Amino acid sequence: MKPPIIIINFKAYENSFGNSALELSKKIEKLSKEYSVEIILSVPATMIYRISNEVDLPIYAQHVDAVPLGAHTGAVLPEMIKDAGAKGTLINHSEKRLRADEIDDIIKRLKALNLESILCVDRYELVYPFSLLRPNAILIEPPELIGTGISVSKAKPEVITRAVDEIRKTNGVYLIAGAGITSGEDVYKAIKLGAQGIGVASAVMKAKEPEKVVEDFIINALKAMS
Amino acid sequence: MKPPIIIINFKAYENSFGNSALELSKKIEKLSKEYSVEIILSVPATMIYRISNEVDLPIYAQHVDAVPLGAHTGAVLPEMIKDAGAKGTLINHSEKRLRADEIDDIIKRLKALNLESILCVDRYELVYPFSLLRPNAILIEPPELIGTGISVSKAKPEVITRAVDEIRKTNGVYLIAGAGITSGEDVYKAIKLGAQGIGVASAVMKAKEPEKVVEDFIINALKAMS
Amino acid sequence: MKPPIIIINFKAYENSFGNSALELSKKIEKLSKEYSVEIILSVPATMIYRISNEVDLPIYAQHVDAVPLGAHTGAVLPEMIKDAGAKGTLINHSEKRLRADEIDDIIKRLKALNLESILCVDRYELVYPFSLLRPNAILIEPPELIGTGISVSKAKPEVITRAVDEIRKTNGVYLIAGAGITSGEDVYKAIKLGAQGIGVASAVMKAKEPEKVVEDFIINALKAMS
Amino acid sequence: MKPPIIIINFKAYENSFGNSALELSKKIEKLSKEYSVEIILSVPATMIYRISNEVDLPIYAQHVDAVPLGAHTGAVLPEMIKDAGAKGTLINHSEKRLRADEIDDIIKRLKALNLESILCVDRYELVYPFSLLRPNAILIEPPELIGTGISVSKAKPEVITRAVDEIRKTNGVYLIAGAGITSGEDVYKAIKLGAQGIGVASAVMKAKEPEKVVEDFIINALKAMS
Repeated sequence: MKPPIIIINFKAYENSFGNSALELSKKIEKLSKEYSVEIILSVPATMIYRISNEVDLPIYAQHVDAVPLGAHTGAVLPEMIKDAGAKGTLINHSEKRLRADEIDDIIKRLKALNLESILCVDRYELVYPFSLLRPNAILIEPPELIGTGISVSKAKPEVITRAVDEIRKTNGVYLIAGAGITSGEDVYKAIKLGAQGIGVASAVMKAKEPEKVVEDFIINALKAMS
Repeated sequence: MKPPIIIINFKAYENSFGNSALELSKKIEKLSKEYSVEIILSVPATMIYRISNEVDLPIYAQHVDAVPLGAHTGAVLPEMIKDAGAKGTLINHSEKRLRADEIDDIIKRLKALNLESILCVDRYELVYPFSLLRPNAILIEPPELIGTGISVSKAKPEVITRAVDEIRKTNGVYLIAGAGITSGEDVYKAIKLGAQGIGVASAVMKAKEPEKVVEDFIINALKAMS
Repeated sequence: MKPPIIIINFKAYENSFGNSALELSKKIEKLSKEYSVEIILSVPATMIYRISNEVDLPIYAQHVDAVPLGAHTGAVLPEMIKDAGAKGTLINHSEKRLRADEIDDIIKRLKALNLESILCVDRYELVYPFSLLRPNAILIEPPELIGTGISVSKAKPEVITRAVDEIRKTNGVYLIAGAGITSGEDVYKAIKLGAQGIGVASAVMKAKEPEKVVEDFIINALKAMS
Repeated sequence: MKPPIIIINFKAYENSFGNSALELSKKIEKLSKEYSVEIILSVPATMIYRISNEVDLPIYAQHVDAVPLGAHTGAVLPEMIKDAGAKGTLINHSEKRLRADEIDDIIKRLKALNLESILCVDRYELVYPFSLLRPNAILIEPPELIGTGISVSKAKPEVITRAVDEIRKTNGVYLIAGAGITSGEDVYKAIKLGAQGIGVASAVMKAKEPEKVVEDFIINALKAMS
């Protein structure tokens, strides 16, 4: 993982799986190479194997369960996503929250497996406490803005600046901003406010031409970093 | 789905995913062809695509979530498992229980997608009520026996006979028995008691030679049906 | 419990507890005596003892947990609500759903304690299956109408009529209609459509003069029954 | 709250509610006065009003839900327990875990209501992160020892010493040790290891003469503090 970090959460839309997801991933792969910017794709559990086999980008799971290997019907576990080709996973997304003890268990287990973790939080007050559990990055997303198209960069810039202040109390954990990020300008602002990257979902997944949106994000991320 | 129904729940053991899961699946495929008995494999979400692509057996998911397509990070949905090659799914396993409204939603959605459903219950009292939601089969498993090696056939035969009485109040829903099924004799008894098949997990997944266990199950299932 | 059944769910509003809840309960008690109509009050766990000690109405809990007596910190159990003076409880409200096996456990346990149960469902398809678990009554509430002021009687009368058809397949279980019930007319219609009573929350709890709303409900319930 | 802190979690045993709970509380009140030691009783939601009205000890809830006042059937909320006479509450007990965002919400809300909070954690790694959310105390309990009679003081003293090291990074948050505390010696050791108090449940609730157990705990707590 290296800044600017761009993570695209495929979620569970109609085009989040199957051939359309694969095609979208390939288009993003092309942009990633063209601009030499790493782009993380967080895809449904059923798609990790397929996409990571055909696309040269870091593929993440969207969630892993905290239970150990064993009699756990329906569990998606760190060992399984690694085997399927994932390089890491989102943890504690607002649509799939975990308890703090589960988060600690999962991060330790991911580290032992050499998998990366992006830990989601909904408020700056949790940034420093959760950074102490040593994920690779923390993604802050005010849940009330997720999916709205009203970006955290514009509507709640203080969430980013306070989160940046908090993350600076520790070392080696990136701070990523998300929620409502829609335009290149949102991306530019988030990074200028101190974030080392951005997280996005609907703005890409629901776009008519997602590759144009991603390209605009890349260009603005690079501009903000330079 | 046609009797004798043998469903093997891979759960989340070390050999439930990756190459070992694939090899096990291929051995079972061979037995299935040799004896002309359909064997259902219920595999982790990350493995559905791989196994259904390489093995000619009905592959099931172990669980699906009840949320619709959309912004649902981490969800495993009926549409996703179908796209990955699944022919159906377990629902409401004791290790992944759902609410009744969710079960009703999921069964309707599976039917619309032409996917099969095996609905798990823990007691005979729920067999007839849940049969009214029209799954393809109901798998009854007293949770206190799951994974113990003490079979429902021997320890609680009345659970099977009462469940059989209940399922007969309706038409077109199979009754499968599970929990602690370990030997061919357990399989034979379960079917003689009126079940149309059996569900098994640890007895196969933790066996040194799983294919021998499966073969023994098949032979006894056929003997009991004849 | 006898028709017309009027159950008022206090939920967790500012006036659902403390002295204001007690005063409201006393006003409703007066109306209940005046019209000789039983009115059930479903109150927060912390208020069961106080209200049942001071008010001569059947007091219900809003929820009970399915765990047995023992090491279960924070659990509200059937034995506790009985000890506090409750006569019964709501089960499976859309704001506190349970699994079917938990519902079956709870109903059996309530019966053993001589407590009543009103089991909530969100769709007519669950009315007959859940009636087989033998609660005293089933309260059908389409969740999308709860708290809206748009009544099930007017907006979705077919939900009531279909639920009535379903409940008639069994004996000795009442059918109560709820969701969005706001006016006496809503009450009248619900009962005319075949319900044996109504469930209400916000229309009473958020009213300026709740006792007038309740009186209007009583008058219309009696008119519809006669 | 002042050291030595002794908190007795009544949980949900047969004697955790009703007259037996009230009598037990009165016996403990007597000991508290005799030795001038504050003893916190954490009681079922249905008992808060009764016990706090009749017993002059700080009464705590065992859990509160994180939802705001409003349409939340079955919720036990900070405002309700305060109204019923509680002085504070346990949060995040291993038998009733919460998410970190919920914990942060609840602590802020308790503070606004002038209620105290004892936040439970299962590992020393969470002590400092959670101390940043500013509860009044953190109660560390290795869940594998809860209810076993094998005390954390003896079996895992390093859990206490490491937790004490962690709590010292912050100011104004007490550290309480629990799990398996059975004898006065366990209490003595826990406090000597640096804890400012102890949490106990089954050793008192399941004792034939609970008041003798409590007295022994008090004597040893005082001895360790002196």
